[in-house]
Amino acid sequence: MIIDCHGHYTTVPAAFGEYRGALHARLAETGDSPAPTVPAISDGEISETIEANQLRLQRERGIDLTIFSPRASWMDQHITDAATARAWARASNDLVHRVTTLFPENYAGVCQLPQTPNGQLGDSVAELERCVTELGFVGCNLNPDPSGGFWSSPPMYDEYWFPVYEKMVELDVPAMIHVSTSKNPAVHTLGAHYLNADTTVFMQLVEGDLFGRFPGLRFVIPHGGGAVPYHWGRFHGLTVRMNRPPLEEHVMRNVFFDTCVYHQPGIDLLTNVISADNILFASEMLGAVRGDNPETGASWDDTKRYVDSVKLTEDDRSKIYELNTRRVYPRLEARLPRP
Amino acid sequence: MIIDCHGHYTTVPAAFGEYRGALHARLAETGDSPAPTVPAISDGEISETIEANQLRLQRERGIDLTIFSPRASWMDQHITDAATARAWARASNDLVHRVTTLFPENYAGVCQLPQTPNGQLGDSVAELERCVTELGFVGCNLNPDPSGGFWSSPPMYDEYWFPVYEKMVELDVPAMIHVSTSKNPAVHTLGAHYLNADTTVFMQLVEGDLFGRFPGLRFVIPHGGGAVPYHWGRFHGLTVRMNRPPLEEHVMRNVFFDTCVYHQPGIDLLTNVISADNILFASEMLGAVRGDNPETGASWDDTKRYVDSVKLTEDDRSKIYELNTRRVYPRLEARLPRP
Repeated sequence: MIIDCHGHYTTVPAAFGEYRGALHARLAETGDSPAPTVPAISDGEISETIEANQLRLQRERGIDLTIFSPRASWMDQHITDAATARAWARASNDLVHRVTTLFPENYAGVCQLPQTPNGQLGDSVAELERCVTELGFVGCNLNPDPSGGFWSSPPMYDEYWFPVYEKMVELDVPAMIHVSTSKNPAVHTLGAHYLNADTTVFMQLVEGDLFGRFPGLRFVIPHGGGAVPYHWGRFHGLTVRMNRPPLEEHVMRNVFFDTCVYHQPGIDLLTNVISADNILFASEMLGAVRGDNPETGASWDDTKRYVDSVKLTEDDRSKIYELNTRRVYPRLEARLPRP
Repeated sequence: MIIDCHGHYTTVPAAFGEYRGALHARLAETGDSPAPTVPAISDGEISETIEANQLRLQRERGIDLTIFSPRASWMDQHITDAATARAWARASNDLVHRVTTLFPENYAGVCQLPQTPNGQLGDSVAELERCVTELGFVGCNLNPDPSGGFWSSPPMYDEYWFPVYEKMVELDVPAMIHVSTSKNPAVHTLGAHYLNADTTVFMQLVEGDLFGRFPGLRFVIPHGGGAVPYHWGRFHGLTVRMNRPPLEEHVMRNVFFDTCVYHQPGIDLLTNVISADNILFASEMLGAVRGDNPETGASWDDTKRYVDSVKLTEDDRSKIYELNTRRVYPRLEARLPRP
């Protein structure tokens, strides 16, 4: 089977966007108006937004199951009000849960967390536990920069983050490292912030010794690992210069890159320099890059075409398409047929 | 001939580092102590630091000339005191000038600018003019994030930057986009900040229309363009999604990537997806990544090996090794034999 480990619910019904607008509007108010109510959205509305978009493309492309999370650019972790963060994460995760309930064979859930810039992580731990134990989610998206482009949080090897890591290890779920919208006018969300975050966190993991402390912790770094595989020699060289153990031991037992790289030469490089044990198939559709490459007529984000075109052993192809993802997200097993 | 467009004077005599230390120490003082004096450094000391390091490697690798600038991580543009910024940039550029005078066939100068976080750019314009007209420099390094990892400056299409651009166009010199040390503990200087800056600025140039306003402006984006070539499909797709003209017209008439990518697959990708008209040979030695790849026994930063190993037409190879750099840095002509 083919599992896409990285999809977002970018096509939510309009009423849900209005709810988000109401939450934001309330933050600007001085009075003590009541919290907005999560809108009633019918199963039919949810099905329609999925069937016409993500599920249609999954079927066209031959992808069986997508690990699905709330829209990344709407995670809004820059908002400092903890009550708003809790309400928004809960509503967003509940909506994804409904998708996974309506289409249990095609979607498994991953939650966003109610992080705030430098806020305590208790709410995030509680929401992670709720989503995994009550909603059957298989992982979380962890934002290394809730400030949205100002990088005001400690590096991810800092003990600030440990409460989330402890809960992840206890529940045996991984985190995808995923920022939300950039609030920094110098840093474009989709064309810079996302990729920079991938690179920045990888280098934090080289600097620290997080996996020495948490050997069972697993991170997926999306967007093909940002700049990392392209600069694999640089990272190897820096690792030696900084007297760190080899990357393969120090980082790559616990870190995985997805295949959200939208052209053939990029996927060729990724699969050339990174072990097939560390690559998870993904497309992030419908995500940052929609539409077709005029030179090929194919969709930019149809990453299966690129992976299919790479010369790989059948074993390695199975790892990338299915087996690694089952290993990194072991809670998938409960929902899937045996490999 | 072979020109390396990206080298820094990372091996300055110890007295120069002590001068920097004195400048920094004075900033922490409350009194009004006199400004430190630039130390006397002999020609012999300078020659020794160059001959034993950069020039030795240039000769071993067959590189004729390096476009040479002050040590990037020491540009210190996060310092807010304008007088210190002026003194430090002037001293650093004067030292590079002495290298270019001692080894006129092997080094051409590029200056750092006395930028400060969100400070006015008059001092930078004056220093650029001094370096080009009095010291024979052929370009400058422009820091898009003087804050050092907080990205507090406007995007590079903003008119904040126009005074420097106007002077660059008047003098017909390009800028390499190059940040200095990260002051942000979440963002490692060599493994994240440098690469992120390359990616961030490229995306700023996609967002704005800077080259519509300054058609003669030329930027070199170092470190192989950060994450950009690896994600070339993403940037193409985003350009279409944002209704920008094709990258080739909108950005790539004015932007060039260097070859500071420290493994063969990275250089293969760079030369595969980016036109040979937009690639300038460079190694940044002695820069971020020193030492040898244990698998090949060759130095990580011996980028000439990688470029030599790529299948290229002789025309394209000449462009990458020499002709593009002469075109982008036209003031080189005065110091070089005809191609």
